[in-house]
Amino acid sequence: MDIQTKIDLSRYKAIRSRTEEICKPLKREDYIPQPVVYISPPKWHLAHTTWFFEQFILKPGLRGYKEFDPDFGFLFNSYYNNVGERVLRAERGNLTRPEIDEVLAYREYVDRHIGEFFSNQEPEEKFNDLLELGLNHEQQHQELLITDLKYILGHNPVFPVYQEGGALLENGSSKGSWINFEETIFEVGFEGNGFCFDNELSKHRALVNAFSIRNSLVSNGEYIEFIESGGYKDFNLWLDEGWAWVNEEGIGSPLYWHKIGRKWNQFTLGGLREVNPDHILAHISYYEANAFASWKGLRLPTEYEWELASDQMKWGERWEWTQSAYLPYPGFKKAKGAVGEYNGKFMVNQMVLRGASVATSKDHSRKTYRNFFHPHLQWQYAGIRLVK
Amino acid sequence: MDIQTKIDLSRYKAIRSRTEEICKPLKREDYIPQPVVYISPPKWHLAHTTWFFEQFILKPGLRGYKEFDPDFGFLFNSYYNNVGERVLRAERGNLTRPEIDEVLAYREYVDRHIGEFFSNQEPEEKFNDLLELGLNHEQQHQELLITDLKYILGHNPVFPVYQEGGALLENGSSKGSWINFEETIFEVGFEGNGFCFDNELSKHRALVNAFSIRNSLVSNGEYIEFIESGGYKDFNLWLDEGWAWVNEEGIGSPLYWHKIGRKWNQFTLGGLREVNPDHILAHISYYEANAFASWKGLRLPTEYEWELASDQMKWGERWEWTQSAYLPYPGFKKAKGAVGEYNGKFMVNQMVLRGASVATSKDHSRKTYRNFFHPHLQWQYAGIRLVK
Amino acid sequence: MDIQTKIDLSRYKAIRSRTEEICKPLKREDYIPQPVVYISPPKWHLAHTTWFFEQFILKPGLRGYKEFDPDFGFLFNSYYNNVGERVLRAERGNLTRPEIDEVLAYREYVDRHIGEFFSNQEPEEKFNDLLELGLNHEQQHQELLITDLKYILGHNPVFPVYQEGGALLENGSSKGSWINFEETIFEVGFEGNGFCFDNELSKHRALVNAFSIRNSLVSNGEYIEFIESGGYKDFNLWLDEGWAWVNEEGIGSPLYWHKIGRKWNQFTLGGLREVNPDHILAHISYYEANAFASWKGLRLPTEYEWELASDQMKWGERWEWTQSAYLPYPGFKKAKGAVGEYNGKFMVNQMVLRGASVATSKDHSRKTYRNFFHPHLQWQYAGIRLVK
Amino acid sequence: MDIQTKIDLSRYKAIRSRTEEICKPLKREDYIPQPVVYISPPKWHLAHTTWFFEQFILKPGLRGYKEFDPDFGFLFNSYYNNVGERVLRAERGNLTRPEIDEVLAYREYVDRHIGEFFSNQEPEEKFNDLLELGLNHEQQHQELLITDLKYILGHNPVFPVYQEGGALLENGSSKGSWINFEETIFEVGFEGNGFCFDNELSKHRALVNAFSIRNSLVSNGEYIEFIESGGYKDFNLWLDEGWAWVNEEGIGSPLYWHKIGRKWNQFTLGGLREVNPDHILAHISYYEANAFASWKGLRLPTEYEWELASDQMKWGERWEWTQSAYLPYPGFKKAKGAVGEYNGKFMVNQMVLRGASVATSKDHSRKTYRNFFHPHLQWQYAGIRLVK
Repeated sequence: MDIQTKIDLSRYKAIRSRTEEICKPLKREDYIPQPVVYISPPKWHLAHTTWFFEQFILKPGLRGYKEFDPDFGFLFNSYYNNVGERVLRAERGNLTRPEIDEVLAYREYVDRHIGEFFSNQEPEEKFNDLLELGLNHEQQHQELLITDLKYILGHNPVFPVYQEGGALLENGSSKGSWINFEETIFEVGFEGNGFCFDNELSKHRALVNAFSIRNSLVSNGEYIEFIESGGYKDFNLWLDEGWAWVNEEGIGSPLYWHKIGRKWNQFTLGGLREVNPDHILAHISYYEANAFASWKGLRLPTEYEWELASDQMKWGERWEWTQSAYLPYPGFKKAKGAVGEYNGKFMVNQMVLRGASVATSKDHSRKTYRNFFHPHLQWQYAGIRLVK
Repeated sequence: MDIQTKIDLSRYKAIRSRTEEICKPLKREDYIPQPVVYISPPKWHLAHTTWFFEQFILKPGLRGYKEFDPDFGFLFNSYYNNVGERVLRAERGNLTRPEIDEVLAYREYVDRHIGEFFSNQEPEEKFNDLLELGLNHEQQHQELLITDLKYILGHNPVFPVYQEGGALLENGSSKGSWINFEETIFEVGFEGNGFCFDNELSKHRALVNAFSIRNSLVSNGEYIEFIESGGYKDFNLWLDEGWAWVNEEGIGSPLYWHKIGRKWNQFTLGGLREVNPDHILAHISYYEANAFASWKGLRLPTEYEWELASDQMKWGERWEWTQSAYLPYPGFKKAKGAVGEYNGKFMVNQMVLRGASVATSKDHSRKTYRNFFHPHLQWQYAGIRLVK
Repeated sequence: MDIQTKIDLSRYKAIRSRTEEICKPLKREDYIPQPVVYISPPKWHLAHTTWFFEQFILKPGLRGYKEFDPDFGFLFNSYYNNVGERVLRAERGNLTRPEIDEVLAYREYVDRHIGEFFSNQEPEEKFNDLLELGLNHEQQHQELLITDLKYILGHNPVFPVYQEGGALLENGSSKGSWINFEETIFEVGFEGNGFCFDNELSKHRALVNAFSIRNSLVSNGEYIEFIESGGYKDFNLWLDEGWAWVNEEGIGSPLYWHKIGRKWNQFTLGGLREVNPDHILAHISYYEANAFASWKGLRLPTEYEWELASDQMKWGERWEWTQSAYLPYPGFKKAKGAVGEYNGKFMVNQMVLRGASVATSKDHSRKTYRNFFHPHLQWQYAGIRLVK
Repeated sequence: MDIQTKIDLSRYKAIRSRTEEICKPLKREDYIPQPVVYISPPKWHLAHTTWFFEQFILKPGLRGYKEFDPDFGFLFNSYYNNVGERVLRAERGNLTRPEIDEVLAYREYVDRHIGEFFSNQEPEEKFNDLLELGLNHEQQHQELLITDLKYILGHNPVFPVYQEGGALLENGSSKGSWINFEETIFEVGFEGNGFCFDNELSKHRALVNAFSIRNSLVSNGEYIEFIESGGYKDFNLWLDEGWAWVNEEGIGSPLYWHKIGRKWNQFTLGGLREVNPDHILAHISYYEANAFASWKGLRLPTEYEWELASDQMKWGERWEWTQSAYLPYPGFKKAKGAVGEYNGKFMVNQMVLRGASVATSKDHSRKTYRNFFHPHLQWQYAGIRLVK
């Protein structure tokens, strides 16, 4: 992270309060469960993002700061081996205590002390960078909070509504025109004054062969064609591990889709609704994205192609699976200490997604951003862009 | 079930309200999780016991009764294949909705209609029997509610207190004197006017060989001796599957015991406390009970020995593991329909426990009662009685 | 074991050579695999039975005896913790060395030294008993050898023939007449001069309630009726864990049965053959035996009923599942040391079978013999006898 | 595959007989087991490679050809969904029949008919290409045959010798000098007249940033330093999934290494030997290669860097893990039908290895060859080359 902007308290407050706003429509019961291991309970997101500021700013940086509760470091550390022991990831859903109220008090306590931290001093560069990282971390968790609470509600047999209206999914999809690129050399990766994660560094030259990329993402209607033509039953379209996944898990549609009679319905944050064929497809895995592209006789973009084309195409409504595995850029350097565990140690067995989604927080996307997930995961608002 | 007593509404109300009373000290968050598959969330216990009355009494028996919510049959059926589809057992902890308030409203709604049911008519025999079964079922769940909430709280790293004082575990243990029995023929099983479960029937003659049984249960102190002398490390003391369990699960003490420095502590409903060597041991599996008895050169009682001796010895504070597998009595008959699934289908791979425990509801124990669990389970208040 | 007969060398030789005779029709490849964990490779049976004599007779009892190969103790110990480390049970099928020829040389070497052992001395009582145990152990393994090699051949898609003709399964089944018993007290367990296992001791008085037992075992034809009437699809007939087993494993018939067109065929040691409805059923689990009996409105015998009735009924062609769990008799005592691990440590989660089967070695059955297996296992020649 | 060379029969025979030569030192028992799912039994390799020629050449191409045995298609198909049903991969070790002799007869039969095929006709281009593929396929299996039989022998507690002398591992390792490269554009992938696999196509331009690469591979001695300095215990060096693998599997050294007293020994095809610190390291996973490079403050090469540098460095003794995930080249096209399943469907979750190893068949390596394995696998002769 090489950040030259100064954090001010009002931005801190705005981002922090957005997290609480997302939780407003939840019932208290919704804060607790962890139905699968890669989902975290909303309560855990509220506490963990707060722990980050306490651990990395207040404890080392605010003279006389007294931890809210010494147990919280153990309870709400996510995966930082450098910071000590922690609750097993799979046990997050069994933590009935601290209660929500206490977690909210924890947020309030830490926010108050961050205010004090600001009033005492102009934060030195190290803390400025860590604050910036903490805010971006909070925004990442806002996105996960939305997709995780959708999972929790969407797997309840009564399909509870999060928000009437819940326009999150209602994006139109323009018809696809193709944008053509000649072979070119360009510079990949982040450079500039703003914030970026370490995995976007360092900027380096790369050659991209000629390609054409579609301006619009794949629509629900296109995907229904794939399903109806037997796409989930033709092994020739699938990666070997994708085919095993389809069969072992009994997959036959995007996550949250339910065929009722002859109609496809989907669970949305506004409840169960009929699938609109014109809207942009979401909630598919890399395996599905790849099989769909094969069925079309096309392929997914590489992350370099995507970054090159990004200025000329519409993006930001779905995370887009690329054909690139998540690997370090040439010149990538892991930071020292706990912060070094942020990204680098996940660079195997995951695929890169580019773009942003309807669940992404404002000001939390840029064309160099590299998201990454295991190829079987469907719970993000991930979609498909085609290349030929 | 051959029941000649009439149920009256006041007994119904007393038993039902006891369930809510047990839940009083809980925080709302505590109602949700299912940390392991054999634990059910408190919310689930509240709803499932209520469903039993709705399903078996109100729907068939109260003219014009309208279900509280048609989804609840699916959500809160436990294992009755005859009653239709249901939520997978392992998913009970992911049901954030209905909320607690709605479940409490469900209880109130059903209780009100049971009142109406009583006021309309003297319940015919069939419904009288099902009401009696429903109340005994509720009492069984009261016991599970206590042991399940103990598990939920006891696996939280902060060891929350359920009830200050929490005298549940504080039972003294008299020193053991031996009671001798000559070979005798006696009648095993229930007979009489009160309620019993089908597995206690039918009464039959049995011969029991001469034996001596200890008047008191094994104390914590005696069990500490077993631990300190290497009991968990000597394969000769263990059943083969018990030895595998000890090693795979890393078992080295009763559930809820923690060695802090040189002292044994245990989580109780009153919080973490030092183990009192004079109190009665609890929370051990059949494997541990069996290994302890082997270490002593003694054995556990059969359920026939236990029933024969029960009039002459003190019991009721711990469920007591017997050396008897859970099997049908001669002449056992499964009831027709869903109620027939209550007990009979579990008669394999489980061991019988006799007695009752500090978590057992008042008036819910008798000497012919047969409880049963898999041999590796520790979360009940189960203890050890010795025989030679 | 309380044995008053003296072992002579000719009996030793006869029993030992029987093991090799069973292996004669095998191809060398058949000696190796372990397709499931409860099956042992034929090579392993050949070596393990030999190890028993080396370990318990020759090493302690023959002055100057030199082990054939010091590695063999590690390789061919089955489950005796007292005798030291051993190859994991699940790895038996990966032992390509020692080769068969070396294992046969091992047998020859040990047999030769046993001959020497006999010529030196009249074996003292301790060794006489261990020799007797070793021979009975060998006979038990002969039975397992047959059922294990049947499994290995029967799971090969080309269904290899073990022995043309292979009359093993061709037993007729008389029609069932019922034998009635009044309530009676009798003595259960072994007593006398011959050999018995420790689990048949000690003899004790027991009361058996009145019952009727069928003279003949259930035939294939009767079982086909059960299948055709939907027996595998009606949960009401099954124990809960049996129903889970049927569904998880996709069970719909006895082991080795294949429906080809409209005909039931079965793999036999003589190859694939049409099922003869008059022959006695085999290769069913306890769960299936229990479900079949439920379907008939009847039940399986207890082991006490079986032992009482054994003098008046025909038995010896199938192992017969009883409704009794495998538990110690009153007065059961585990022997000291490794021999004490023979039986006692398996006394949980298994069901008793009584009788003997077509795979049982001559002179290796008696009415007090207690065999035992987990309730889901089908690979023995186990059948069904009914009681009402 | 774009092949312009003509196959002649003598090359066919030379390659085919090499497979049998590798098997010569085996005992018959060694042909059978499959100790883990990714290992195939030697017998299976012998038959499967033969099936390839029968299936793709003789059946479609030799008029009047009669299959050796119609069951073999089912038994020895590996993973070609297009060719029909097959034995589950995990069951290969349970196939005791056909016997080795029959498999060798199968080889002889197919080879004879291939001879006939050649004498009848100049093979048309389609068959020429398939023959070429079949021979390269056979050579791939020769390598696997060696590494699989090493696994089988190396996991036997008696460590059998495959070949006295067994010089396979005895390669010296020159000290490492660094070769420097400036940023350059070059063409990646295969082009020319010889054979290549589809995954090496199509040739395309790529830009490689400046880098330095070591001329020699990492030696055992360097790796021992890593171990002794606590490399397996420092989570900061490991990928997250690598760290989980180390802990769950209890990994603390390369495969086949055993510490006896204070000395590291390794199982080789010549038996158990002391590790020579000057020899080249082998049998490590990608996770280990990556952790070792991190410990050095260096990294692994990308496959593009490797291919670019290959002309200037020594290679061919170990497969070398690269930092590149196995993905399609731009312009990659899957062939139609079964042959299209050869490579493409594995392009996810695996890492590329470049080079060749001591187990690679002569004439079966080239600088564009892309091997690939899952990141946790250790059983290949895989080593480490460093880049800075």
